[in-house]
Amino acid sequence: MKVLVVNCGSSSLKYQLIDMEGEKVLAKGLVERIGIDGSILTQKVNGEKYIVEQPMEDHKIAIKLVLDALIDDAHGVIKSMSEISAVGHRVVHGGEKYANSVLIDENVMKSIEDCIKLAPLHNPPNIIGINACKELMPNTPMVAVFDTAFHQTLPDYAYMYPLPYDLYKNNGIRKYGFHGTSHKYVSKAAAEFLNKDIESLKIITCHLGNGASLSAIEGGKSIDTSMGFTPLAGIAMGTRSGDIDPAVVTFLMKELKMSTEEVDTLLNKKSGIFGIYGKSSDMRDVKKAAFQDKDARAILALNVFHYRVKQYIGSYVAAMNGVDAIVFTGGIGENSSENREGICENMDFLGIKIDKEKNNSAIGVNSDITAENARTKVLVIPTDEELMIARDTKEIVISLN
Amino acid sequence: MKVLVVNCGSSSLKYQLIDMEGEKVLAKGLVERIGIDGSILTQKVNGEKYIVEQPMEDHKIAIKLVLDALIDDAHGVIKSMSEISAVGHRVVHGGEKYANSVLIDENVMKSIEDCIKLAPLHNPPNIIGINACKELMPNTPMVAVFDTAFHQTLPDYAYMYPLPYDLYKNNGIRKYGFHGTSHKYVSKAAAEFLNKDIESLKIITCHLGNGASLSAIEGGKSIDTSMGFTPLAGIAMGTRSGDIDPAVVTFLMKELKMSTEEVDTLLNKKSGIFGIYGKSSDMRDVKKAAFQDKDARAILALNVFHYRVKQYIGSYVAAMNGVDAIVFTGGIGENSSENREGICENMDFLGIKIDKEKNNSAIGVNSDITAENARTKVLVIPTDEELMIARDTKEIVISLN
Repeated sequence: MKVLVVNCGSSSLKYQLIDMEGEKVLAKGLVERIGIDGSILTQKVNGEKYIVEQPMEDHKIAIKLVLDALIDDAHGVIKSMSEISAVGHRVVHGGEKYANSVLIDENVMKSIEDCIKLAPLHNPPNIIGINACKELMPNTPMVAVFDTAFHQTLPDYAYMYPLPYDLYKNNGIRKYGFHGTSHKYVSKAAAEFLNKDIESLKIITCHLGNGASLSAIEGGKSIDTSMGFTPLAGIAMGTRSGDIDPAVVTFLMKELKMSTEEVDTLLNKKSGIFGIYGKSSDMRDVKKAAFQDKDARAILALNVFHYRVKQYIGSYVAAMNGVDAIVFTGGIGENSSENREGICENMDFLGIKIDKEKNNSAIGVNSDITAENARTKVLVIPTDEELMIARDTKEIVISLN
Repeated sequence: MKVLVVNCGSSSLKYQLIDMEGEKVLAKGLVERIGIDGSILTQKVNGEKYIVEQPMEDHKIAIKLVLDALIDDAHGVIKSMSEISAVGHRVVHGGEKYANSVLIDENVMKSIEDCIKLAPLHNPPNIIGINACKELMPNTPMVAVFDTAFHQTLPDYAYMYPLPYDLYKNNGIRKYGFHGTSHKYVSKAAAEFLNKDIESLKIITCHLGNGASLSAIEGGKSIDTSMGFTPLAGIAMGTRSGDIDPAVVTFLMKELKMSTEEVDTLLNKKSGIFGIYGKSSDMRDVKKAAFQDKDARAILALNVFHYRVKQYIGSYVAAMNGVDAIVFTGGIGENSSENREGICENMDFLGIKIDKEKNNSAIGVNSDITAENARTKVLVIPTDEELMIARDTKEIVISLN
């Protein structure tokens, strides 16, 4: 069975075609600047690039070109569209309705539309992508895999904000959490790596990229996560503030006369690591400035980032009354030994201690970086959200027959 | 030496006259409805009440009546005002300038005024109270004791928000923390109670009242605390939300068309325990509803409260890489065994376990409620902010001579 995985943004589209026999990625690609001058599709097959540059007015045209590229005689990997057994769509927000991936029908589309008010930037392009695929492949089953679904197991005391209860009941204001597909994937992969039953494990997954979140996973279930009602909450991120005193928001509006839009932009695009350092949100730049140039603000930005991850780890150890493994994933978590070291420094009271050499050589591959005799395993597990989406899609499609 | 301690609110004033020989409270009192119809002064001496009801147009008149009550032939405790060697004033916000209590002079008054923008509700009445005392006792030294001072030892990575750096430099947006006088008092008292040098201890103080905050205290210094730029941040409180996704604030404004003032009121006055339970912010009411009536929302409110305190404890264990003692104080912390039990449940991984019987009998007195063999001490230590203010005042006044 071959599954096409689609992740649609407002002007971009990522895709992978995965052969589920052996879980092999046949092709992966990125379409950029959809609806904007200079539209471009880049497909990679076995490391070889195939580029299509032509105007793409909308997502339907973009997806048509993706399908063309996949069946292209010279650069494609399949003979016809009919080889695609199913399409798995990443959907950011499933609200409280979906604790699992689901076959897309009209009711599901309606629910995804209902969640637009909770994810005004993300769900609309997801919907556009699904509709475009449905038009081009009307007989192919489509599955929605939600970023929020894995966190629907949070107990009420973890997802409920201390706000008027009506705001939950009437307006859906609660913690949803995001990056669920990644947290689910790496927690399962970590259990397999450790050769343990996930049911018996307490795992803290640290998905650290430009967006970043942690999750506390007990017996395979997410029982807490650091993002909240939106992906703004939690630890400091590339450009997002994460948790701050909520009174700062109204202070900015009253004292600096900022509008709600300006505050949203400030907190989402100009804060986090970038806000403190001031010159870049790219962790590689920040580390260079901190370690080579001894830039005080770069050092402070790193320290804040590490401290806040450290504190979330502590809070999740308390939440689970223990921890068996810490898992690092995401661009930073997989590749940056310095950040893993900064986070795990002085954490031996919680049984966390990494081996410096193992840590330094763990770059983008499944690795155990635990120091000898440390009680808590520390692992590096590269995430693979596309594969997780493809697996869920396969499982649902098989269950239909 | 006799020290008068004054805590001025916008329409109220609390005071104590303390004889520093033996640290004995000679008289304590409360003036209410200053500048409002029905002004009333209630003074207690050895449990006996003395009530003065008469119009009090402003704080100067109120303080004059306090002094009259203290020297009253029948109900007073001193013969003349000259017996008051110094006045200690509680001041909420000292900004970054004051890491310690300070003798009040013109420069100090200027600094307290500069902090009005950071504490618009609290510093103005504090200033009015100081000015009124200065007019009536022009030759008596006055000392300012700041709620923020004890937390000025926070490292930069703990007080810096992941926001644009200019907001810190130009607008003073950072974590300040509050309840400092209480955290300082109970951490010192805890070390004495344990007969240990505070320099050697890692203590987490939980000041749980209608307002509530935790502090991580390493070697006698506050290294983190849960309140932030304002007293809104941190754990869920009686009516305050504590930490929430900051995007909720702009969502409320955009979707529910609330103004900044309405949001401030909602988060400060209608949220927290009250918001979830919906009927009362008084912990006794919530516990009754939860335990006797099995009210689902009261149970949820308690669970959220306990969970958030638990998580802060975990995060501070991570921050200090250990913990020797957890200290409960404040109205709830001192008196509510059920809340202490809810917080300390399932925390044995962190060495925290309380003895049920010891916990149940620890009501408002210094107590060790640690279970046998538990690694981390759990203590109940009643706070005494007035005594702490008096001690600081005495020390500063003595150093003048």
